Amino acid sequence: MNIGIVGLGLIGGSIGLDLRSRGCDVFGVSSRQQTCDRAQARGVVNDASIHLSLMAAADVVFICTPLGSIEPIVRDLVPHLSPNTIVTDVGSVKTPIVQAVSSLWPNFVGGHPMAGTAESGIDAAVPDLFVGRPYVLTPQPQTPAAAVDRVEEIARLLGASVYRCSPLDHDRAVAWISHLPLVASATLVAAGVREGDRDIVNLAQHLASSGFRDTSRVGGGNPELGVMVAKYNREELLRSLSIYRDCLDEFISDIAAENWQALEHKLKLTQQARQNYKL
Amino acid sequence: MNIGIVGLGLIGGSIGLDLRSRGCDVFGVSSRQQTCDRAQARGVVNDASIHLSLMAAADVVFICTPLGSIEPIVRDLVPHLSPNTIVTDVGSVKTPIVQAVSSLWPNFVGGHPMAGTAESGIDAAVPDLFVGRPYVLTPQPQTPAAAVDRVEEIARLLGASVYRCSPLDHDRAVAWISHLPLVASATLVAAGVREGDRDIVNLAQHLASSGFRDTSRVGGGNPELGVMVAKYNREELLRSLSIYRDCLDEFISDIAAENWQALEHKLKLTQQARQNYKL
Repeated sequence: MNIGIVGLGLIGGSIGLDLRSRGCDVFGVSSRQQTCDRAQARGVVNDASIHLSLMAAADVVFICTPLGSIEPIVRDLVPHLSPNTIVTDVGSVKTPIVQAVSSLWPNFVGGHPMAGTAESGIDAAVPDLFVGRPYVLTPQPQTPAAAVDRVEEIARLLGASVYRCSPLDHDRAVAWISHLPLVASATLVAAGVREGDRDIVNLAQHLASSGFRDTSRVGGGNPELGVMVAKYNREELLRSLSIYRDCLDEFISDIAAENWQALEHKLKLTQQARQNYKL
Repeated sequence: MNIGIVGLGLIGGSIGLDLRSRGCDVFGVSSRQQTCDRAQARGVVNDASIHLSLMAAADVVFICTPLGSIEPIVRDLVPHLSPNTIVTDVGSVKTPIVQAVSSLWPNFVGGHPMAGTAESGIDAAVPDLFVGRPYVLTPQPQTPAAAVDRVEEIARLLGASVYRCSPLDHDRAVAWISHLPLVASATLVAAGVREGDRDIVNLAQHLASSGFRDTSRVGGGNPELGVMVAKYNREELLRSLSIYRDCLDEFISDIAAENWQALEHKLKLTQQARQNYKL
């Protein structure tokens, strides 16, 4: 099988490493020649180019660029593809991507491999990044079944656990487990910045430990990435934020009213509910 | 030096282990004979008893019980103490404890060693739990200086980094780094419970990974502990929650208004601000 990868970063590079080692021929495109050279040197691809024409030989093309570049790249890519080529992406929001790209290329399967590390770029690519991780496919009713099956087959080749759902269900689920946590976590750090007493800020900065570290981690991440998910998953994020805000108000009410029984009841439910997540 | 410890759990037990190994004689009190036996068997104490009269020989007594028991225990302890005995505690909220206990025993120094593990009880006690960890002392203006110095000396013997501040400053700082994160984190899990679509809940539970795991961790902890800190640090927690809620509303406004520049600015500040914490 000939695999094309556009965007040779952590995800694209790791897909290339794995699929080559499992017998595929892998062709990569990056906008930077330096990245193409590095990808070849690292054995991520058989061949790499800054020109999308290299994708002509691919049976399946993975678009592994940031969310904002997926649609324009597919637009440029289409003239180079043969009619049977399957295109898939790895974007972390699906509804707007699937909508836009399917109209450009009907043989498109939205995908989201849920794996990563703190690093980025071609040098961050590692083998077996997707083993045991969820890989969500978001076909629409009109998506060709053979295309979905083919992408699923590759995701399994990567060792991932495949889930299929609608783009909307995907976006709603990741709003809960990924995008809402990001905003709740960022708000925690932003609130601390409002503390006006320097002595207390200084003390807090020295006393902070694992609880604060873990709760603030995703909120202290890449700002561009945060904006991107808010932009692309705006409606579902706002929906989860509105529910979050209601729940927050109820916690505040219980504490203000010294309703300790209600607070304990809530915290018990929370403790139980968290155990339902496969963490 | 003769050390008394009332409450032989993770903290009390770990203090005992370390101070014995550094040459102190350690006497422990627990309300349960079984815990006393176990503490002796583990070498945490030279002697243990269910009777507070054992504390008569102590130069310094550590109260290592849950917040709600500190004041009543000191009330029962006072008749057994010689006038020079120093009493200190390890409670995670200081203002109400320092206020109540100082009036019972003027030679009292509020303390908060900021260390722990996920475990509890005498069998969870480990050596060197406090090495390199913050240990906050919260003397009042009228607290005898010699008593504060003595407790500081012991905290250093445990290998901790000692901070001195007022009870209020302590409570305000831990509201930011410990109690607010707990409520923000619990709210995250509580909000997810409100999702009415079972398919999405199921998907979210399977897709959740490190971001959700870390952000929800402290909110999924011991409910009784959560209620206790909310009860004892209510005013400071409500203060931080009110600021948190304002910041949350601003994040929501930016996203609703598609003000991506403002959102990116906030997330950049957040990313920078988090780096000021010694995590």
